[in-house]
Amino acid sequence: MIQCVSALNYDTIIEIIIKGESRLKTYNVAIMGATGAVGQQMKEQLEKRNFPVNEIRFLSSSRSAGSNIDFKGKTYTVQEAVPESFDGIDIALFSAGGSVSEKFAPEAVKRGAIVIDNTSAFRMDPEVPLVVPEVNKSDLSLHKGIISNPNCSTIQMVCALQPLKEQFGLTKIVVSTYQAVSGAGIDAINELKSQADAGFDQAGKAEAKMLPVKSAEKHYPIAYNAIPQIDVFADNGYTLEEMKMINETKKIMHDDSLSVAATCVRLPVVTGHSESVYVELNAAPALEDVKAAISAAPGVELMDDPSQQLYPMPLMAAGLDEVFVGRVRLDLDNPQGFHLWVVSDNLVKGAALNSVQIAEALIEEKII
Amino acid sequence: MIQCVSALNYDTIIEIIIKGESRLKTYNVAIMGATGAVGQQMKEQLEKRNFPVNEIRFLSSSRSAGSNIDFKGKTYTVQEAVPESFDGIDIALFSAGGSVSEKFAPEAVKRGAIVIDNTSAFRMDPEVPLVVPEVNKSDLSLHKGIISNPNCSTIQMVCALQPLKEQFGLTKIVVSTYQAVSGAGIDAINELKSQADAGFDQAGKAEAKMLPVKSAEKHYPIAYNAIPQIDVFADNGYTLEEMKMINETKKIMHDDSLSVAATCVRLPVVTGHSESVYVELNAAPALEDVKAAISAAPGVELMDDPSQQLYPMPLMAAGLDEVFVGRVRLDLDNPQGFHLWVVSDNLVKGAALNSVQIAEALIEEKII
Repeated sequence: MIQCVSALNYDTIIEIIIKGESRLKTYNVAIMGATGAVGQQMKEQLEKRNFPVNEIRFLSSSRSAGSNIDFKGKTYTVQEAVPESFDGIDIALFSAGGSVSEKFAPEAVKRGAIVIDNTSAFRMDPEVPLVVPEVNKSDLSLHKGIISNPNCSTIQMVCALQPLKEQFGLTKIVVSTYQAVSGAGIDAINELKSQADAGFDQAGKAEAKMLPVKSAEKHYPIAYNAIPQIDVFADNGYTLEEMKMINETKKIMHDDSLSVAATCVRLPVVTGHSESVYVELNAAPALEDVKAAISAAPGVELMDDPSQQLYPMPLMAAGLDEVFVGRVRLDLDNPQGFHLWVVSDNLVKGAALNSVQIAEALIEEKII
Repeated sequence: MIQCVSALNYDTIIEIIIKGESRLKTYNVAIMGATGAVGQQMKEQLEKRNFPVNEIRFLSSSRSAGSNIDFKGKTYTVQEAVPESFDGIDIALFSAGGSVSEKFAPEAVKRGAIVIDNTSAFRMDPEVPLVVPEVNKSDLSLHKGIISNPNCSTIQMVCALQPLKEQFGLTKIVVSTYQAVSGAGIDAINELKSQADAGFDQAGKAEAKMLPVKSAEKHYPIAYNAIPQIDVFADNGYTLEEMKMINETKKIMHDDSLSVAATCVRLPVVTGHSESVYVELNAAPALEDVKAAISAAPGVELMDDPSQQLYPMPLMAAGLDEVFVGRVRLDLDNPQGFHLWVVSDNLVKGAALNSVQIAEALIEEKII
C-alpha cells in the first residue's frame, strides 16, 4: 500500500478552516548543502509535495556559493552559509557533511530553527531523535532542536521490517547491501560515468579518486566492480556504514536486544539501493501473512510475483518515493526465518523525502 | 595459502620413473561446448596447467561448428558433436547446456570416456559425484562414468567454508550473491556491453534480450542495475540458482542437516562472482583462528586487512585461479557467527579450472 505522510492532510485543512485561519501556516525553510545530490532532491521534494514554504534559502560552502537554483518558478542564488544565515528560519534541512552540521546546526537551533540533519553527526546522540516517520514519528516530540535523518540504507530497511516487528516480533536481522554510487555524492556519479565511458577492457585500470571513500588512501574503480567498503573501517573490522545500519536500526526500533548484522557493498548502479535481508521473527507466520503485513505498511509497496518475474530493481525504483519489497521467502530450515529483497531510491526515501516527511510530521504533530 | 591440485606432482613423476615408463601417460580429451565462455576457459586451463593431453577434440552444436581454435600452437576446427565424436576419448569436459549433456554424456560414457559435466543436468543424481577437489576429492572414486562440476557460486563458497567446517563445525549458511554476467554466457557479456555503451541516461530503456533468463518471458537491462533473479523460479519462490547453492552445498559437504539459504543477484560486472556469507559454527573460535583456518585452506587466499583497505573485488579476481576471502568479521551478537566476503572468477575456479582439477585428481587418484 502506498501511503505517504502528507503535510496537507484533510484533518489539518479542516482544523485550519474551523479555526477561521485565512490561509495555511507557512514556514521559512533553509537547505544547507543545496547544490549536492541530496540537497537538490530536498528542493524537488519541497516543490513536489507542495510543502508550505514562506521563504526559502539555499545555503552551501563557499565553494558552491553563487550558483543559481530554481524553486517554484523563481531563481535563487546559493549563499555561503554563516551563522546569521539561519536568522528567522523555522526549519533547516542539512545535508552538507558531518563537520558542517556540527558547526552550523547548533547555530541554527540557537536562532530558533528546528534542524533536520541528514548527516551522521548527531544520529547516535541520545538527546537527538532519529526518525523515520512511518516507524517512530512519536520520537519527534522529544527533540531539543535537532532531529536526525537516518542513513539511507537504514531507512528503507526499517520501513520494510517495521510491519514484521509489529505483527510478529523481530529478533535478528542479517543484511547485505547493494548500494548505488549516488550515496557518495555527485562526484562519485561522475566518476562511475567516466570509468564506464572508458569501456569494458579498461575497467581494471580506470582512474579512481572518489570511491570507496574520498579521503581514504586507496581508491578503486567502481565500473564493472563491487567494492565491499562504504565509509571507513571501525576497529572491529566493520565499516562505519555497517555500524550505522546496526546501531541506527536498534535506536529507531527502540530495541537494543535486536541482533543486527550488516555487510555494505558499493555497486556500479547510479541510484537505488538494494538489500538482501534475512530476518528471524518471534513467531512462525505463514508466508502470505508476512506478505500481507508488508503490503499494508505505510510507504512500502510489495512487488512480489515470481510467476510474472515481478520484483523490485534499482533501475525501476529510481525517482520513486516508495520502499519496494519483493522476493519474500520462507527460510527452508527455520519456520521463523524469512528472506526479503528491499529496494528504494537512496536520494528520495533514503534522504530527501524522509527529511521533508519529518518536517511534515512536525507540522501534523503540532510540534512546530 | 595458494595450493593447487596438480596433475604432475612429484610422487606421480617418481612412480613413473620407478616403473620405467618412458614418458608420462597422456589422455585423449574432448571439450563439448568449446566455443562458449566456459569452453574457452577449459581450453586455456588445459594449456596453462600443462595437462597431459594426447589428442584433443573441440566439439559444439551445429551452430558453432566450423570455427577454429588454437591449442598449444596448433589450429583445430570445431566439429559438430555426434555420438561417435567420443570414440577413443578418455576425458570429456562438457559445458554446452543441460540438454546437450543429457543427450551426449551417456554416449560418451558408453564409449569409455569419463565425463566431467559443468551443467546442472546430473548434479543432484545420487549416482553422480559432485566434486570440488579441495573439499570432497574422495567422492571421485564412486563415479559411474559421469562426474558433475558444481555451480560456479557454490564452488567458491564451499572452498571458503570447508576449512571452517573441518575445524569448528558448520551449522548454518546465509549467502547473498553478487554475480557477474559472464555466468550467463558470452551473449550476456555482449548485452551488458551494448547497454553500457548506450550510456547512463538510457539505462532504464536499454534493450534487453538475455537477462535474467534468455528463455523467460521478461528481460531487464543489467547495466547500472541489479537483478534479483538468476535462472527460473521454483514453486517455493526460490530461483533454481538459489536452490542449486542450497542443495549442492549439502551434497558436497555431506551434510543434509546443514541449514543453507541463498539469495542470488546478477550485477553489471563482467567476470567475478562475489558473495556476502554469514555462517554459524559449532564452536566460538577467536576471529584470528577463523582467519588462520581460511588462510591455510587449499585454493583459498585470505585477503583481509582493513587498515590497508585490502579485500577482494571482482575486478581484481578476474583471470585468477584462487578463491579470495576478505572482510572476515565476528558477528556482534552471536559468538558462533561470522561474516565473510568471498570472491572468485566464476569462469575459472567457478567452472573451467574446477573441471580440469577434477580431471587432474582422477589421474592423481589413479581412477583413470
